[in-house]
Amino acid sequence: MYDLNMIKTISQTSPQKIVLLVLDGLGGLPHPETGKTELETAMKPNLDRLAALGICGLTDPVGPGITPGSAPGHLALFGYNPITYNVGRGVLEAVGIDFDLQPGDVATRGNFCTVDANGLVTDRRAGRITTEKCTALCRLLDGMKIDNTTIFVQPVKEHRFIAVFRGPGLSAEATDSDPQQTGVPVKPVTALQPAAEKTAAVANEFITQAHLRLSQHSPANMLLLRGFSRHPHFPSMAEIYKIRAAAVASYPMYRGLARLVGMQILQTGAAIAEEFDTVARNYNNYDFFFVHVKGTDAAGEDGDFKRKVNIIEEADRELPRILGLKPDVIVVTGDHSSPAVVKGHSWHPVPSLLYSKVCRPDRETVFSEAACLYGGIGRIPATGLMPLAMANALKLTKFGA
Amino acid sequence: MYDLNMIKTISQTSPQKIVLLVLDGLGGLPHPETGKTELETAMKPNLDRLAALGICGLTDPVGPGITPGSAPGHLALFGYNPITYNVGRGVLEAVGIDFDLQPGDVATRGNFCTVDANGLVTDRRAGRITTEKCTALCRLLDGMKIDNTTIFVQPVKEHRFIAVFRGPGLSAEATDSDPQQTGVPVKPVTALQPAAEKTAAVANEFITQAHLRLSQHSPANMLLLRGFSRHPHFPSMAEIYKIRAAAVASYPMYRGLARLVGMQILQTGAAIAEEFDTVARNYNNYDFFFVHVKGTDAAGEDGDFKRKVNIIEEADRELPRILGLKPDVIVVTGDHSSPAVVKGHSWHPVPSLLYSKVCRPDRETVFSEAACLYGGIGRIPATGLMPLAMANALKLTKFGA
Repeated sequence: MYDLNMIKTISQTSPQKIVLLVLDGLGGLPHPETGKTELETAMKPNLDRLAALGICGLTDPVGPGITPGSAPGHLALFGYNPITYNVGRGVLEAVGIDFDLQPGDVATRGNFCTVDANGLVTDRRAGRITTEKCTALCRLLDGMKIDNTTIFVQPVKEHRFIAVFRGPGLSAEATDSDPQQTGVPVKPVTALQPAAEKTAAVANEFITQAHLRLSQHSPANMLLLRGFSRHPHFPSMAEIYKIRAAAVASYPMYRGLARLVGMQILQTGAAIAEEFDTVARNYNNYDFFFVHVKGTDAAGEDGDFKRKVNIIEEADRELPRILGLKPDVIVVTGDHSSPAVVKGHSWHPVPSLLYSKVCRPDRETVFSEAACLYGGIGRIPATGLMPLAMANALKLTKFGA
Repeated sequence: MYDLNMIKTISQTSPQKIVLLVLDGLGGLPHPETGKTELETAMKPNLDRLAALGICGLTDPVGPGITPGSAPGHLALFGYNPITYNVGRGVLEAVGIDFDLQPGDVATRGNFCTVDANGLVTDRRAGRITTEKCTALCRLLDGMKIDNTTIFVQPVKEHRFIAVFRGPGLSAEATDSDPQQTGVPVKPVTALQPAAEKTAAVANEFITQAHLRLSQHSPANMLLLRGFSRHPHFPSMAEIYKIRAAAVASYPMYRGLARLVGMQILQTGAAIAEEFDTVARNYNNYDFFFVHVKGTDAAGEDGDFKRKVNIIEEADRELPRILGLKPDVIVVTGDHSSPAVVKGHSWHPVPSLLYSKVCRPDRETVFSEAACLYGGIGRIPATGLMPLAMANALKLTKFGA
């Protein structure tokens, strides 16, 4: 299929506006008692009407059988091939808390953890300490200087934090210290390439120093690092699509992902109604809105079928706040499936709908996994949705003479 | 789409078991009198029940419009992109008769043929001499030594044999001696690259010597060589998928293909019931079984619609031998289509079904080309079936954070 370089050569500005509504983890599986998925169970007249007027289909974020994480799932929706455009775990966490990553910085994701007197990990999450405790411990470690390198330590949530290494001669080609299991010692960070030897040495010294400073703070008496990575510097959506793109997301990770592709991040309340109102408030200033609803995925991961249904219904109920703006193109989809019966992300293709005045309607009249199987979008890679939305917004010119 | 390197990073072991049942050349075309394909004509309650509980779809072994040979057809089913993972004809024949190819060996596929007094080819297959005669002639030529090179000559079937060149400084970049038509002379082998000049010279001298030794053995008084190739050394399925994979195939070529991707070859009887019993007998020792049924393709190639129907029905009738084992994932598909009305391989997409407890069911209730068009697998490259089976067997972790 095409790539972003090709899309860039044919994109153009137009007055049309696109709303990409991502109901995180939208795709489901049938409830054992009813045989209906979450989406099929929900009363959602607005989404059904959009599906009737528009086209539906199934999208594969990465490919058949692949369960995507949030980063590849969203990058695919933004049109970025998630295999080519890879984001390291450390970077993802750092951009997710608005940390201002500089060129050359190496970011890692950290856990506070518990080790016993023999140095064996007994709890990889230090009993899930509170975010307040995490913040206090980060303050204890933040700003350490080792061998010309400054280490920034910032809290994320509960036991999770980021450690960012800034200094000359660093590389991200280093292994995790997190052993991913208990009953074993913390692993030394090792260089995967000679260029990362300094990084490994600094990281190991940091771990040693941190252990000393944390020794009186059991259960959080140690830390684990993983996902050594650098800012990937992706081409921006403005460059590729020639749009002014804005993100409305109440969870930091999704703001971080939007920032990686150059979207403007809008201040928003966390409720679905507030997120939709944020679109309305900023409607005149942008051509493209990425709106992220987290609750569907959280409910799916918790195995809470009914709550996932409720959140879909809530999104549907509040949808007129966006529909009233009469956007030219509306896409409703998920970054992956999170069926309540799976209690987690899954590989199942994602129900997707696209409404515009110029799509070729299909016969389907509701938004459901079953209807999407027969819809006019067909089954396509999720990276195809953004060009399809662009085309429907008359933002792509002819390819070739 | 993804490649095997990506799959390798996310594969994990699990207790679940996968059976991949390949009905060779399964896909068909409607019988002119009934309008039904072979698969649609067959009474096959077991396969229909699997289709009703699971998902169906159409798979493209290489791509739309491409008629695959057996090697690309099977490699795609094993998840190996058949354009990237290319097997030479000589190697395919050699591994198909269990010849122990060494690094550096150059294998070719040979035909005994007939030439007239002027050296013009009059029959490219020497009247399809018996396998016994072929074996005797191979003995006449086997072990010849030319310029530090030993030439191993081993019978395959009827007029077909392999010639394997072993010695220093060989290359597979050489042209066929087979002119692919009659009434013309045998072509000299030529080097496609300077590194293959020795190979071409040795091959040509071998052909000259062989012609002398065969002169009294008309109609098999000459030979033709094609498909100069080397063992490709593919990554094994064990490396990529972290599975213990076993092959049940009564035809040598399919065992050879399975061996190229590192499967364990199980001793088996040739009948479908015996093949299925071989799975049962070895069930505890492997996670993945590739089971190959040849008869469907042979019937299709013979243009024998009814026999192809009968073999599908036989496979269905014997299927409980496998179903009784309760494999977690069952995939039933073909390596390509071989419609009886075409009398050969064809480019038509291949009907495929996947059963597991965690697939998202579709509305289709029978296994047929028509139902596959609307099924939950959609239309995907055949290389997607293996990751899909892996996902359903919980053998793939999340991709990306």
